Amino acid sequence: NTSKMYAKTFFSNMNFDSITINPYMGSDSIKPFLEFNNKFAILLGLTSNIGAKDIQLKNTKEDFVFIDMIKSSMEMGDEKNMMYVVGATKPEYIKKIRSIIPNHFLLMPGIGAQGGDLNQICKYALNDNIGIIVNSSRSIIYASQDEQFALAAADQAITLQNQMKKILSNRK
Amino acid sequence: NTSKMYAKTFFSNMNFDSITINPYMGSDSIKPFLEFNNKFAILLGLTSNIGAKDIQLKNTKEDFVFIDMIKSSMEMGDEKNMMYVVGATKPEYIKKIRSIIPNHFLLMPGIGAQGGDLNQICKYALNDNIGIIVNSSRSIIYASQDEQFALAAADQAITLQNQMKKILSNRK
Repeated sequence: NTSKMYAKTFFSNMNFDSITINPYMGSDSIKPFLEFNNKFAILLGLTSNIGAKDIQLKNTKEDFVFIDMIKSSMEMGDEKNMMYVVGATKPEYIKKIRSIIPNHFLLMPGIGAQGGDLNQICKYALNDNIGIIVNSSRSIIYASQDEQFALAAADQAITLQNQMKKILSNRK
Repeated sequence: NTSKMYAKTFFSNMNFDSITINPYMGSDSIKPFLEFNNKFAILLGLTSNIGAKDIQLKNTKEDFVFIDMIKSSMEMGDEKNMMYVVGATKPEYIKKIRSIIPNHFLLMPGIGAQGGDLNQICKYALNDNIGIIVNSSRSIIYASQDEQFALAAADQAITLQNQMKKILSNRK
């Protein structure tokens, strides 16, 4: 009931394009966000922080908690209304994730301050539609503490952008 | 990093008493909320909705995901800075939960519209400090759709309050 009102508020009233969803409360907390055209629910899959091991990487009878979650979420929607957060700090899991969801976009935080490596994640995460949204926050917004902070932030953003450009042009 | 700023915002800047925390992202997303005196992080344990089975009630090697989570959270804080959400719709788990956390307060949604029974949950959840906060939303705020809705809502709230009073007076 609450999710339905959140979905209506963000997607209809406020016209957001997408919203990040924590899947801990299960399917009935997720489904209301999948009932809008051209809107995306971005489910937290495997997050970039250390605490990801506490629940997401617990072993169930079948697999990791987060893998079970991705699999069961595929009965609710598809790559047209869902994406997944997959931390760039955990490249060792991306190949497996891509074997389950080859077509979904992945939102990948953790490049920069958290230590994720762009080349490494691109190796496994890119698909024919690119398929990844790279989020780098702290390395850009905290690029400098002095008066030139805006220029320093811009430098960082451009550097990352150029890295991405290079990877993509090497690919084709 | 983000949790630290949320904690500061809600507890210091806005002076909230408590905040509900989703534990899916693990310990480093929870700990920053435990560093304030007389403030409470209320962790989602076993929620009242149907989707609770999707992740929370998955079996791990040790126990259910939500039981493992409660146990590991006890290394981060205690009943002076943590509570847990335990849905009133799932009384069959309360006895077990109380055996692990006898002293923590439990925030119990699901009384009323969701079908939770007050007598049933009190049987297992009450402790010497009462130990529960009962949340009933829809049965009160949606008590009526007509012009007398405020009176109908008040009636529902008073009815629930009287039920609680009776349970407590029967107890001593």
